[in-house]
Amino acid sequence: MNVAKSLTLHEDRLFSSDATQRAIARRLYSQVAQLPIISPHGHTDPAWFAGNEAFANATELLLVPDHYVFRMLYSQGVALDALGIPRADGSRADVDPREAWRLFAANFHLFRGTPSSMWLNHVFFEVFGLRVKLDAATSDHYYDTITEALATPAFRPRALFERFGIEVIATTESPLDPLLHHAAIRDSGWGGRVITAYRPDPVVDPEHGQFPDALRQFGQITGEDVHTWDGYLRAHRQRRAFFAAAGATSTDHGHPSAATADLSPAEARLLFDKVVRGAATAEDAELFRAQVLTEMAAMSLDDGLVMQIHPGCFRNHNHGLFQRHGRDKGADIPLRTEYVHALKPLLDRFGNEPDFRLILFTLDESTYSRELGPLAGHYPCLFLGPAWWFHDAPEGMWRFREQTLSTAGFHNTVGFNDDTRAFLSIPARHDVARRVDCAFLAKLVAEHRMDEDEAAVVAVDLAYRLPKRAYRLD
Amino acid sequence: MNVAKSLTLHEDRLFSSDATQRAIARRLYSQVAQLPIISPHGHTDPAWFAGNEAFANATELLLVPDHYVFRMLYSQGVALDALGIPRADGSRADVDPREAWRLFAANFHLFRGTPSSMWLNHVFFEVFGLRVKLDAATSDHYYDTITEALATPAFRPRALFERFGIEVIATTESPLDPLLHHAAIRDSGWGGRVITAYRPDPVVDPEHGQFPDALRQFGQITGEDVHTWDGYLRAHRQRRAFFAAAGATSTDHGHPSAATADLSPAEARLLFDKVVRGAATAEDAELFRAQVLTEMAAMSLDDGLVMQIHPGCFRNHNHGLFQRHGRDKGADIPLRTEYVHALKPLLDRFGNEPDFRLILFTLDESTYSRELGPLAGHYPCLFLGPAWWFHDAPEGMWRFREQTLSTAGFHNTVGFNDDTRAFLSIPARHDVARRVDCAFLAKLVAEHRMDEDEAAVVAVDLAYRLPKRAYRLD
Amino acid sequence: MNVAKSLTLHEDRLFSSDATQRAIARRLYSQVAQLPIISPHGHTDPAWFAGNEAFANATELLLVPDHYVFRMLYSQGVALDALGIPRADGSRADVDPREAWRLFAANFHLFRGTPSSMWLNHVFFEVFGLRVKLDAATSDHYYDTITEALATPAFRPRALFERFGIEVIATTESPLDPLLHHAAIRDSGWGGRVITAYRPDPVVDPEHGQFPDALRQFGQITGEDVHTWDGYLRAHRQRRAFFAAAGATSTDHGHPSAATADLSPAEARLLFDKVVRGAATAEDAELFRAQVLTEMAAMSLDDGLVMQIHPGCFRNHNHGLFQRHGRDKGADIPLRTEYVHALKPLLDRFGNEPDFRLILFTLDESTYSRELGPLAGHYPCLFLGPAWWFHDAPEGMWRFREQTLSTAGFHNTVGFNDDTRAFLSIPARHDVARRVDCAFLAKLVAEHRMDEDEAAVVAVDLAYRLPKRAYRLD
Repeated sequence: MNVAKSLTLHEDRLFSSDATQRAIARRLYSQVAQLPIISPHGHTDPAWFAGNEAFANATELLLVPDHYVFRMLYSQGVALDALGIPRADGSRADVDPREAWRLFAANFHLFRGTPSSMWLNHVFFEVFGLRVKLDAATSDHYYDTITEALATPAFRPRALFERFGIEVIATTESPLDPLLHHAAIRDSGWGGRVITAYRPDPVVDPEHGQFPDALRQFGQITGEDVHTWDGYLRAHRQRRAFFAAAGATSTDHGHPSAATADLSPAEARLLFDKVVRGAATAEDAELFRAQVLTEMAAMSLDDGLVMQIHPGCFRNHNHGLFQRHGRDKGADIPLRTEYVHALKPLLDRFGNEPDFRLILFTLDESTYSRELGPLAGHYPCLFLGPAWWFHDAPEGMWRFREQTLSTAGFHNTVGFNDDTRAFLSIPARHDVARRVDCAFLAKLVAEHRMDEDEAAVVAVDLAYRLPKRAYRLD
Repeated sequence: MNVAKSLTLHEDRLFSSDATQRAIARRLYSQVAQLPIISPHGHTDPAWFAGNEAFANATELLLVPDHYVFRMLYSQGVALDALGIPRADGSRADVDPREAWRLFAANFHLFRGTPSSMWLNHVFFEVFGLRVKLDAATSDHYYDTITEALATPAFRPRALFERFGIEVIATTESPLDPLLHHAAIRDSGWGGRVITAYRPDPVVDPEHGQFPDALRQFGQITGEDVHTWDGYLRAHRQRRAFFAAAGATSTDHGHPSAATADLSPAEARLLFDKVVRGAATAEDAELFRAQVLTEMAAMSLDDGLVMQIHPGCFRNHNHGLFQRHGRDKGADIPLRTEYVHALKPLLDRFGNEPDFRLILFTLDESTYSRELGPLAGHYPCLFLGPAWWFHDAPEGMWRFREQTLSTAGFHNTVGFNDDTRAFLSIPARHDVARRVDCAFLAKLVAEHRMDEDEAAVVAVDLAYRLPKRAYRLD
Repeated sequence: MNVAKSLTLHEDRLFSSDATQRAIARRLYSQVAQLPIISPHGHTDPAWFAGNEAFANATELLLVPDHYVFRMLYSQGVALDALGIPRADGSRADVDPREAWRLFAANFHLFRGTPSSMWLNHVFFEVFGLRVKLDAATSDHYYDTITEALATPAFRPRALFERFGIEVIATTESPLDPLLHHAAIRDSGWGGRVITAYRPDPVVDPEHGQFPDALRQFGQITGEDVHTWDGYLRAHRQRRAFFAAAGATSTDHGHPSAATADLSPAEARLLFDKVVRGAATAEDAELFRAQVLTEMAAMSLDDGLVMQIHPGCFRNHNHGLFQRHGRDKGADIPLRTEYVHALKPLLDRFGNEPDFRLILFTLDESTYSRELGPLAGHYPCLFLGPAWWFHDAPEGMWRFREQTLSTAGFHNTVGFNDDTRAFLSIPARHDVARRVDCAFLAKLVAEHRMDEDEAAVVAVDLAYRLPKRAYRLD
């Protein structure tokens, strides 16, 4: 007989098993566990909060959008079609969502030790009240419990937002987005603070397939002649102002590298002409993206938007999968990334400006102690974003702290970003980050490198004060 | 008076000193300690098992073939000649093996904290029953005890194989090897499973000094015209089939980089002509090796041999030592290695093939979290080999797990390889790997990230089930 | 009411909170805590020991010269002028040192968890007897206590040198330095051993602004025609002999990369001509520095000076700050660094010479396990310097050991360097290093990888015997 195994969330999870450290970690955590969630960088869909419609079912909510989950299943031979993952043309295999969920459940052991398993179990236990573990035998029980709950008012997006204690959440939009959902949220009278962030990549990357089209739309939405360099820059300024008016406090730039440039206006115009004519080589495209970063920094000085750079990802590495299923299907792979030379042109212009703020992320952990810590521990404008994407597991968070503390301290970091489209996992992710930071601080206290009263201040800084300050959310 | 110090093997070695973690580790280890050894990748000499002759003496068995050992001695000023290490011309300094052993014994303190000391002490204690530590004072006692034991039937290769609980061991041979020893083992009626692996480097690397000669022999042994591209590929197919018939389930490729290529047949033919004419530049040679990897992958799809790539080593770095003592004398040094661009041509062709399997190794630990974990956690064909060579110490194994778990989980890894020619150390090496994995799992359990019953399943997976599955040894 | 918080130095600081490990660490530490300080590489000012004048005040002694401290303050928006940091032209903002100290005190929380906070608190507690924590409220108490103490005989440089238990300290001088202070120390009859080290960077780096001038002075001080290659080499030999006569046992080379070269004399002459004519490209400059390293190695073989290479720093990265405040103002940033190819020319010539000794440092931790450990664990001439500069925090020291132990052991490392101009922090820095090494060894003992009696030998090796041996200080 197959007896379902009990699901628990241990109150000491992620704390050291050493009694001294654990006791300190508990005390520190008790001071941050209930703090409101500051989510300054993420990918939730503003339509959820605008329309406040019920989510469809367990599979649509928890499986289909989560590329952390289906990439692992795919790596062990599960076809994306069998999970109902959309294809490049928007179609889908005809899959019963309950069957897709069974496939997931039967393979849930693949996630042992991964952050996905921690986040999902937190969601199952805390959000849906499940008390048995997910496996093949409990799959239908899970599917039904979750799907039924989602149909109730308490599981509508706004109700969950409030239940989760979210003080503010930022979504991410393209300059071409009219921000209608954000307007609808504001006009609705609902008090939840959902802001946007300006992510201009589609109109910045000449190597993106849709660039010419995006540029045309950029002209339409702004009324500027965006096929001239000056008009292009004016269009950015206009959209940034529009985003800021809709609450944005930041911009976000996901480039292949951290390269920046500082061309003369004449050089920039010539380069832009090549880009617009579709005559840009790969090198030109890289230089163009580099120059735009510096232009964005210049605009940030004027409009106060905090700049974020997320470099170093080879997008859509799996050619066959990309052709079949399109972008963002778990086939993005980190690249070795260089910052010291790459950022110099931008820093030479704005590195000492007191009002400029640039948050750096990396997928290349070898840069933490070598480049990013020393850069952030010197330049007034630079701050370090948290362990990101492939590195936001407890081990990755721990390495981030261990490798940046001595050179950047805590105050040149910005607390946690959940960076997710998995809305229900947001409390789980912040909880993991808070627990890891408390465990890290507890070790410092237990080894007599910091007093506990100081650690308690730092714990609250990391969970709440630093992200608000860094992203100008006060 | 010099009192010999007692040699012990503590039952809790390599487990955390934290009582909670240690208790869990003990329980997990008790379930894997006695499992049979699966050794799917290594360098023992099949002649040992074919001939079953006694080993000569302590020095010949434990010191002369172990480049981990004599490289450390050399780094502290011990001449290789003084240890009786063969010279490039095959000659040897006239050294009494007992004297060489004394030199080793007097310097055994250099190995404190290294894996060699752990492995050797395990061999001394478990295999030879020694109970005092090795140092200058006990050198002769050691030499005599070991050398006398080796003369007895219980220390013949087959007896040790059985005593060690080896279920299957793979050796590694060149395509030019007639596999006579493997045939002799099969024909002998002895039940030990000793298989080969196909390592074609000598006929793949145009920069290897013996390449023209090896190519000629490759033609002779296969009867193919290996100086044409098509004949060369046919020769590989033929030898692979021969190796598979002799039990091989894998191929192994030790290249300077992980570069792969996907040339058209016409381009490949042109390139091969240059290689055959001796006209290949360094760049041509790199491209040729890259193309051969892709050809090997194509053949693996047909014959089912699991492919292994071990890139990133600067061979024979010490020029003077190479001239005097030849290859494999401890002067190989790891190099920075790139995988994301390098593997793309091969993955574009075969990355989504359900029956293709490619195991990746690295000497560049910075790639674990950045490249290898994300690649293996996405591509169905990719698996990660264990911490390898310079990194197979407890610290290196621990880093491997910590840096790949969140992206690749456990199931995209393949358990342990001992990768050794030091036959007697095989149980010690597997024991270290099992202990480190149990200690790693115990930490996850103690920090409430996994339940102990799940960890127990993973422990057995890592020690036994995953290597059998990954290398198709069932 | 603001109650000052008590400052303590816990006797178990930096030891594990695990009782088993802590007890072992205590016992190991008790054997090294009081050993004399060997400081073979540092940047104290020999004028202090020659003149034995009192230090001026807290700010001048502890804040103004410490770029670890003011870089962190600068990164959080504190202007260097406000701290009284000198400008490029030698002038200073008109700042009351007490006010500068207040600014530092009010921001001391920024250093939580950093090595600076550990070192400074050690100095405050041990050297000045302070028993309250530094913050805005205690700033004046600190300033007065420290400044008053400095005026007393017990705080003169020689008295502190003796109180600190320094057996030998090396300073670092340019070949242009007449070493008058070292002569004065010798002539004074005072017994403190203050030696120099030969750091020829100013006459080796054609890209340094003052190179032509330095070269002219090099000719004057040696009487050689240093504008010819042969005269230039003779000048080095002469100055090295002069430095050796003044006690130097080592040379030190701070290059942008680890590149070495082995040109023919004719090639070297041609290259030097270009350098002297100011016609060297960046590539020529790199090749010149590379060739000089190999020449320095050749001279080391003759005169026995131990060679040190410190590569991989982008100096004065912040252009605006460099223009305003000049060199060494905390804007140096580590670079990715390669050793395997870079060192080969030098190692091909001298790598197996029994009397040659080369100590390697890195700012790129990814090279520890990949390149430096394997190199030092093979070549008899190579030794690894300790975790350096940005990496000399407890975490960095721990990573150094964890990532080099398995390949290089302990005996291919050279113990600790304080590498500092912050004289008062020298005991603190050595204490941290000794504690971290004891904690690291305690873990090995607690996990049964080494017996405690062996660890005790290693602890003394690392604290005392290895630096003396490595730097030929016996």
